[in-house]
Amino acid sequence: MKAVVLQPDHRFALEEVKEPKLAHPGDVIVQVTTTTICGSDVHAKHGLLPGVVPGTIIGHEFVGVIAETGTGVERFKPGDRVAVPPATWCGTCRACRRQEVQHCPHGGVWGGGEIFGKGLAGAQASYVRVPNADVILTAIPAGVADEQAVFVGDVFSTGYHAAFEGRIETGDTVVIFGCGPIGLGALVAALQFGPRQVLAVDMLDNRLALAGHYGAMAIHAGRDRVVEQVQAVTDGQGADVVIEAAGSPDAFAQALKAVRRGGRVSVVGLFPNEVALPIHELVYYGVQISMGLGNLSRVDRLMSLLETGKVDLTPLATHTFALEEALEAYDLFENHKDRCVKVLLRP
Amino acid sequence: MKAVVLQPDHRFALEEVKEPKLAHPGDVIVQVTTTTICGSDVHAKHGLLPGVVPGTIIGHEFVGVIAETGTGVERFKPGDRVAVPPATWCGTCRACRRQEVQHCPHGGVWGGGEIFGKGLAGAQASYVRVPNADVILTAIPAGVADEQAVFVGDVFSTGYHAAFEGRIETGDTVVIFGCGPIGLGALVAALQFGPRQVLAVDMLDNRLALAGHYGAMAIHAGRDRVVEQVQAVTDGQGADVVIEAAGSPDAFAQALKAVRRGGRVSVVGLFPNEVALPIHELVYYGVQISMGLGNLSRVDRLMSLLETGKVDLTPLATHTFALEEALEAYDLFENHKDRCVKVLLRP
Amino acid sequence: MKAVVLQPDHRFALEEVKEPKLAHPGDVIVQVTTTTICGSDVHAKHGLLPGVVPGTIIGHEFVGVIAETGTGVERFKPGDRVAVPPATWCGTCRACRRQEVQHCPHGGVWGGGEIFGKGLAGAQASYVRVPNADVILTAIPAGVADEQAVFVGDVFSTGYHAAFEGRIETGDTVVIFGCGPIGLGALVAALQFGPRQVLAVDMLDNRLALAGHYGAMAIHAGRDRVVEQVQAVTDGQGADVVIEAAGSPDAFAQALKAVRRGGRVSVVGLFPNEVALPIHELVYYGVQISMGLGNLSRVDRLMSLLETGKVDLTPLATHTFALEEALEAYDLFENHKDRCVKVLLRP
Amino acid sequence: MKAVVLQPDHRFALEEVKEPKLAHPGDVIVQVTTTTICGSDVHAKHGLLPGVVPGTIIGHEFVGVIAETGTGVERFKPGDRVAVPPATWCGTCRACRRQEVQHCPHGGVWGGGEIFGKGLAGAQASYVRVPNADVILTAIPAGVADEQAVFVGDVFSTGYHAAFEGRIETGDTVVIFGCGPIGLGALVAALQFGPRQVLAVDMLDNRLALAGHYGAMAIHAGRDRVVEQVQAVTDGQGADVVIEAAGSPDAFAQALKAVRRGGRVSVVGLFPNEVALPIHELVYYGVQISMGLGNLSRVDRLMSLLETGKVDLTPLATHTFALEEALEAYDLFENHKDRCVKVLLRP
Repeated sequence: MKAVVLQPDHRFALEEVKEPKLAHPGDVIVQVTTTTICGSDVHAKHGLLPGVVPGTIIGHEFVGVIAETGTGVERFKPGDRVAVPPATWCGTCRACRRQEVQHCPHGGVWGGGEIFGKGLAGAQASYVRVPNADVILTAIPAGVADEQAVFVGDVFSTGYHAAFEGRIETGDTVVIFGCGPIGLGALVAALQFGPRQVLAVDMLDNRLALAGHYGAMAIHAGRDRVVEQVQAVTDGQGADVVIEAAGSPDAFAQALKAVRRGGRVSVVGLFPNEVALPIHELVYYGVQISMGLGNLSRVDRLMSLLETGKVDLTPLATHTFALEEALEAYDLFENHKDRCVKVLLRP
Repeated sequence: MKAVVLQPDHRFALEEVKEPKLAHPGDVIVQVTTTTICGSDVHAKHGLLPGVVPGTIIGHEFVGVIAETGTGVERFKPGDRVAVPPATWCGTCRACRRQEVQHCPHGGVWGGGEIFGKGLAGAQASYVRVPNADVILTAIPAGVADEQAVFVGDVFSTGYHAAFEGRIETGDTVVIFGCGPIGLGALVAALQFGPRQVLAVDMLDNRLALAGHYGAMAIHAGRDRVVEQVQAVTDGQGADVVIEAAGSPDAFAQALKAVRRGGRVSVVGLFPNEVALPIHELVYYGVQISMGLGNLSRVDRLMSLLETGKVDLTPLATHTFALEEALEAYDLFENHKDRCVKVLLRP
Repeated sequence: MKAVVLQPDHRFALEEVKEPKLAHPGDVIVQVTTTTICGSDVHAKHGLLPGVVPGTIIGHEFVGVIAETGTGVERFKPGDRVAVPPATWCGTCRACRRQEVQHCPHGGVWGGGEIFGKGLAGAQASYVRVPNADVILTAIPAGVADEQAVFVGDVFSTGYHAAFEGRIETGDTVVIFGCGPIGLGALVAALQFGPRQVLAVDMLDNRLALAGHYGAMAIHAGRDRVVEQVQAVTDGQGADVVIEAAGSPDAFAQALKAVRRGGRVSVVGLFPNEVALPIHELVYYGVQISMGLGNLSRVDRLMSLLETGKVDLTPLATHTFALEEALEAYDLFENHKDRCVKVLLRP
Repeated sequence: MKAVVLQPDHRFALEEVKEPKLAHPGDVIVQVTTTTICGSDVHAKHGLLPGVVPGTIIGHEFVGVIAETGTGVERFKPGDRVAVPPATWCGTCRACRRQEVQHCPHGGVWGGGEIFGKGLAGAQASYVRVPNADVILTAIPAGVADEQAVFVGDVFSTGYHAAFEGRIETGDTVVIFGCGPIGLGALVAALQFGPRQVLAVDMLDNRLALAGHYGAMAIHAGRDRVVEQVQAVTDGQGADVVIEAAGSPDAFAQALKAVRRGGRVSVVGLFPNEVALPIHELVYYGVQISMGLGNLSRVDRLMSLLETGKVDLTPLATHTFALEEALEAYDLFENHKDRCVKVLLRP
């Protein structure tokens, strides 16, 4: 089968690789029907994602149809449509028993290696071996198209985590820095908590337009004075919750200025380095900062919002390519061409 | 001034009464611009509301303009538009310090008597004396019309309390028994918590139509099999949260059948008597029941949803009368004439 | 091997039965080192526990040593000391994903049958087959004796559930009706939430003495006026949290009188029948009632309190018998002889 | 009367000043019976506390007897023993309505100036004017001595805030950096949340001995390897909750290493400057950081723990001086002489 494979020279290539086989009783083989390019795939290409070694098949955001099941699988059978999370978890360790499956040492978003596209063969391919299927997979309801279901594992899960950890309450003002796919996922998620208003900050007009489509007040990080705008719509109090989905030290510094006394800052952006924390002031102001990439155990809840139409993620998928055109798709995605937000790949 | 006054013979009459005067430094006099008829006013007429004695001016859901302020009032001045909660609270007792202001013994929804229309002169009049103004009043933002603001004190506050105490989580299925004003307030409130779907149950088609307008799936209590319908849309699991806003022993019994194992039942209906609780089964099923009439300290949050247009309560106000026509308005409201939901009175 | 087996005529008998064998890859065989008699075993004898049919080996509270492991078991090996919960759960269904494992339809405290002593062969025997071991078992730390570890699965788990669902906060006053083993477990658990004081109510002086040993204020249900005492130590406010661990309609009625406005009642007692609920009053008073038998997924946390000595459950085990003396032990336990609280059985 | 007054040259002096008078209807005059020296008083002396200008009477941790009441005071009368929080709040603004009274702009721990010893005349004097008495004061129960009650306003409130915001759950491992008065207050508070174990870190043996007295495992920051010790008692997982009460950049860096993935760091120390935050790693590890000085609205709950003897803060008060000996007391406190923890001053 064809797959996108990381090369030693910071390049991706479309290679012919062997199809995966069942290795454990809990495994299934999933035939990928839709997968995406994620911002962290681009990070991996540039060597910025520790542990992603040359030779790895890339990709971790995908849905498909079960092609084959291991002898221990009870909840799924061939032909079932399933959404796959970007990482696996064991379901029995201490972290999993606390339902912090993202911290499972046998998988987890930064654990021992059972992440698709890091440790496990990734999803930009025709078939993927998925371990521990009964524990980690979610069935896709009949009415939910692949083009939406593909987002529950990362874009919507990570965005939801940002909103959840920000502990948004009814009537809160929320500011989101960064309207890339994760920021937009956070916006859609934030709306589930009954905020008074959501302000969305970015540099790209097409992303801001999409944020506006979802009901946010768009703020251009270059043309507008962000902190002043936040103060203006909050009677000078500042935002109750600020979500940092840009991974930018400058945005983080502004987030600390935009949040009210006693407010929460929730960080899901990936940063290149450490930042300065004005702890000597924040202790007086009573600010809380939550950092983290997402709890994958909430996919059921998010899928149910797609099923009833409460949430429509279709507008995120601005482009679709065949897997064979993956390199062209990467060029478009990485360089923000053609008002691109998310690219779908069809093996 | 004219006012609606309870008579000894289970009647209301429009009487000429004296205008109220400031009595304490924290008092204000509010000129009523819009008030409503509440279901509990009808209860009061029939003698079902303990403590409402003949001679009382009725009415507790109202907004107005401040006409006069006591010497101790700091946050408000004459001319300010304000929303008034149905009961007062002191702000300093144990209950208030826990922010359970509805249990304040110096007011509270069932406390020592400082409720408008019970202990305090009510709001179906031109002027009302409002004690402890700095603590209990909320300013109405410029963009919010009286027709909406009038609902934050009871319909929306009580409905929100029902949804809040039901601890609705993202993706939950919610069932609401009773689509009177409180049930509809609960519906609008429930939507702020990101449910997967809300089912609304009533006997009156016009109320069900309004529930449908707000996005609920309407179930007719007479024509449909309610519990079966709930099972059908929850894969046989039952609802995560059931709100009882009907005050009906039959609805309560159905609520206990419609809720899933481990689910929550939130009761805001007023019941005529005690009911049977199948505790011998519910202990196995793990059900939680919350009963209560609402926490009045959340008006700020609710008003902010009206201010930004996230919530529009305008459709609730189906009829408007002059205060002089109050008796005609009661007839319409009490007998569910002309597809009536809420009646506004204009002094 | 010998085992206590339910007879058709509401009797238990010590019978010779076959030793269990591994049936599924996830199974282990546990050699029972310590088991107990639970109040619900007595209910089962009298036919009050639906689903416990004659021929069933009784018992669900036990610890032991792993004798044999199925081919799919990864976390445990022969020789490991383990604590076993009274019921199993699958770990992958909706209820389990919500961490409400007590509602798992493939086990659960009242689910499809995978309860020891109901559906599964019980623990008053030398060996027990335990399904889904990786998911449901907890290793016993070296420093924790069997005599204590045996209580984490039911007495302490169920008691903890009562305290947890009562949502006790720092400085709260807690009243516990019933100082049997579950009530005492609830007392020990309640103390982990920083209450101001705990009042414990029972009819038996030896149980009250044990409650006093743990720091509770003892109230004799026959000699003292319970509600008056609660009012006296709470400035007439009532208790913040009341735990019903007696399964008595009279205690439940008193609980509703002893709780403060806005307070919580948490029920873990098993009731013979339905009770009356004064819902017409409780809606004004704002009371919450939680019913349920316990979440078995918290055993890790409870075991850790035994490990560091923060909690000492040793005093609960007032008597120890050999399994061969089980019928004598039942007589003592059921008839509250010799100041008996909990009886341990040693196979 | 005599009072400790800040001089322009970074000195305190005992001066003769005028006794305070009632200024507003809500004021009371409190005759100070016991006050303390707080670490932030020493900061003020060195000019490190913005807003504390020369001429200010120092001191904010005190109890006393009401000498005189304003005309608007309803809850208190002359002769009442009261505990006074270090700052005032209005009770009606947005922050107060959220119960974040520490962020009230009309007072608050860092608000507009209504802090004793900053903006308001302080407590190291015979009499103090206390504004808004009905809202901010707590009556001292008969059985609670001044020597303990004096700690509820700052040492125990701030320590409790650290534990509360750390969201300690039953069975958690907690590490506290810094065993000064606030760290010890946090230790006592942490124990109210049912932790498995608390590790207390400091450089001074007498403070560690006191931490040990309260049940903590003492770790010497100079002699022991702190992070390694935390790993050793948590199976290499790290602590669930770390409290930073030292105000030390080095301790903060160690706190981030000692906390587990998904854990919480709660900061109450006052820092001299900003610190480095390794956000690029913490996003993967899922760490939450809460910063803040304490919510003064919880004094009732804390006082109730003293009243029933659940908490005994007596050992914190290692020294007592007459107010006339204040300068000697400062010397002892500031230089950690004679195993000093807290110094009481008696006017």
